[in-house]
Amino acid sequence: MSSYRIASIPGDGIGVDVTVEARKVLDRASALFGFSLEWNEFDWSCERYAQAGSMMPDDGVAQLSAFDGILLGAVGFPGVPDHVSLWGLLIPLRRAFQQYVNLRPVRLLPGTTSVLAGRKAEELELVIVRENSEGEYSAIGGRHNAGRPDEFVLQESVFTRVGVSRIIRYAFELARTRSSRVCSATKSNGLIHSMPFWDEIFAEIAAEYPDVHSEQMHVDALAARMVQAPDRLDVIVGSNLFGDILSDLAAAITGGLGMAPSGNINPSGEYPSMFEAVHGSAPDIAGQGIANPVAQILAAAMLVEHLGETVAAQAIRTAVDRVLDEGRVRTPDLGGTDTTERLGTAVAEAM
Amino acid sequence: MSSYRIASIPGDGIGVDVTVEARKVLDRASALFGFSLEWNEFDWSCERYAQAGSMMPDDGVAQLSAFDGILLGAVGFPGVPDHVSLWGLLIPLRRAFQQYVNLRPVRLLPGTTSVLAGRKAEELELVIVRENSEGEYSAIGGRHNAGRPDEFVLQESVFTRVGVSRIIRYAFELARTRSSRVCSATKSNGLIHSMPFWDEIFAEIAAEYPDVHSEQMHVDALAARMVQAPDRLDVIVGSNLFGDILSDLAAAITGGLGMAPSGNINPSGEYPSMFEAVHGSAPDIAGQGIANPVAQILAAAMLVEHLGETVAAQAIRTAVDRVLDEGRVRTPDLGGTDTTERLGTAVAEAM
Ligand SMILES: CC(C)[C@H](C(=O)O)[C@@H](O)C(=O)O
Ligand SMILES: CC(C)[C@H](C(=O)O)[C@@H](O)C(=O)O
Repeated sequence: MSSYRIASIPGDGIGVDVTVEARKVLDRASALFGFSLEWNEFDWSCERYAQAGSMMPDDGVAQLSAFDGILLGAVGFPGVPDHVSLWGLLIPLRRAFQQYVNLRPVRLLPGTTSVLAGRKAEELELVIVRENSEGEYSAIGGRHNAGRPDEFVLQESVFTRVGVSRIIRYAFELARTRSSRVCSATKSNGLIHSMPFWDEIFAEIAAEYPDVHSEQMHVDALAARMVQAPDRLDVIVGSNLFGDILSDLAAAITGGLGMAPSGNINPSGEYPSMFEAVHGSAPDIAGQGIANPVAQILAAAMLVEHLGETVAAQAIRTAVDRVLDEGRVRTPDLGGTDTTERLGTAVAEAM
Repeated sequence: MSSYRIASIPGDGIGVDVTVEARKVLDRASALFGFSLEWNEFDWSCERYAQAGSMMPDDGVAQLSAFDGILLGAVGFPGVPDHVSLWGLLIPLRRAFQQYVNLRPVRLLPGTTSVLAGRKAEELELVIVRENSEGEYSAIGGRHNAGRPDEFVLQESVFTRVGVSRIIRYAFELARTRSSRVCSATKSNGLIHSMPFWDEIFAEIAAEYPDVHSEQMHVDALAARMVQAPDRLDVIVGSNLFGDILSDLAAAITGGLGMAPSGNINPSGEYPSMFEAVHGSAPDIAGQGIANPVAQILAAAMLVEHLGETVAAQAIRTAVDRVLDEGRVRTPDLGGTDTTERLGTAVAEAM
């Protein structure tokens, strides 16, 4: 029997609420599909920061490196600036573990409707392949003339040939398993150093995949297309920032942010990959037991899929679909009055 | 009688098609409302680039500086890289003339429907105040190790206190004439130098406008809100890049890109302001007489409004509304078979 060591970092706010449910579903899946999960929980969070002065211990990365996978809740809480909380936990983990792919599949789940008029589920199935290790999210930069009228800041974006190539290649490989179409997000007309470089590498790699249809669009036009003609999109590859924006938008036109999972993936398997909902910690509804756990449950399905337990992953997704389709158990965002716990249990039982 | 000198730069592709119509409408407006327009046309374009090696003459900025306003078509054509065409014309003009506000109002025009399900016109009226002179659109940066496996590029974003303050202040002033609500686009959790600086200045200026409701959202969440709850947005202020993305999205959820005008505004009036459609040169349909001229006609209305001819500006908008509402004259994007010229004439006659 395969056995996997999983690190759970519930984090802040509703991250805690939904991670409990995802874990419940995973435990049920392991019982049903003949593998075992050994959980270790880490209290790394803004609460820890408030007490101990850091989001995670100095050797946090080392502590996690022996795990087979990481389930992350959400990070961030009022009073702790985002650039402290995120750069003290989420972003260093993404980088230390070379999780250079942020994979964000979306589809319109049963029992939900799109904000877009008249769009059917089959027109709303796409995946954002987001670069997750470099690009616009950079710690390089700073202030000059601080406090003076002529103050300014510089913020550096960094794009490497290695980094851009590997994410684009990943998107082309993924496209071969889907519709064989890749659309690259660019903005070479505005960002005249980084994006022409991105486009150049995209063209080089596209030439290696003559069987895959490739196109590129400026990110502004691509955002417009996503709401005007989502059926013309399938695999979208974008930089850290563009992938972030486009994946939130993709989530919004499908079931909403309560439904969108994501994987921070290290494709080589050298380091653990980390799975999380796209949504944030939503402090306004934290601890009330009303958050929708579906995104985190689907992130858990991605986790076991990544571990090679594809049957279990598919069973989790099918269970989510069945529960949503029946519509008997619905959290407030889905128009119901059920609790986070109730929806998690319903999915576990539906497997 | 007031007289204004207007520079017309039709540019490339459908920019040429739609600018003719906008000019027709402006000429009619001037005849009706007692002012005169003296036109000068400039052939600055990718065609010129192909022949003369530059998008505009060396003294282009000087040539334009004596005008009261500029009507710009669209710039860009296949074969000329965007970062050549745009940085050889549009972007240097925006900067030389300190057009630091890019104003992009959208609303759902009569006779058109939103891609968003069940949204009424009054829920879809907003304006993007986009910073237009600095930020992510920067020429600073370059390649290192070109052609080697360890190649990388740096792309610098530059945010100054002067630049950020003036655009945010403009947004607050504008909000006072509208709903008294401003939402600022940030991404301080990812871009940890530029965006915390932006947020800090936003908070300072918000404190000066206690009568205006202010909030900030991460740009990813804001894009999601725009499609999920556009009625909760009115004035949005964003950086050059964020404003670009959000305004295309805003256009997409209202009438589409064929309907969205924009103004590159120098608020002090020291230099000419420049008005253009949000859409690009659309080479695929250029010269066929099928482009929708509404965006450019509405840009022309913004131009005369900026010159102080508010009654004429309102008359143009009313004429556009009437023609669209009647629905007798419609270009292909509106579901009809009429030409660009026919729609332009219809608006001119409806005044
Ligand atoms: C053409 C391009 C540089 C431009 C921009 O992004 O500024 C355009 O998309 C716009 O929005 O005016
Ligand atoms: C929290 C934030 C830094 C993060 C990001 O932008 O990467 C989040 O929005 C996400 O998409 O995972």
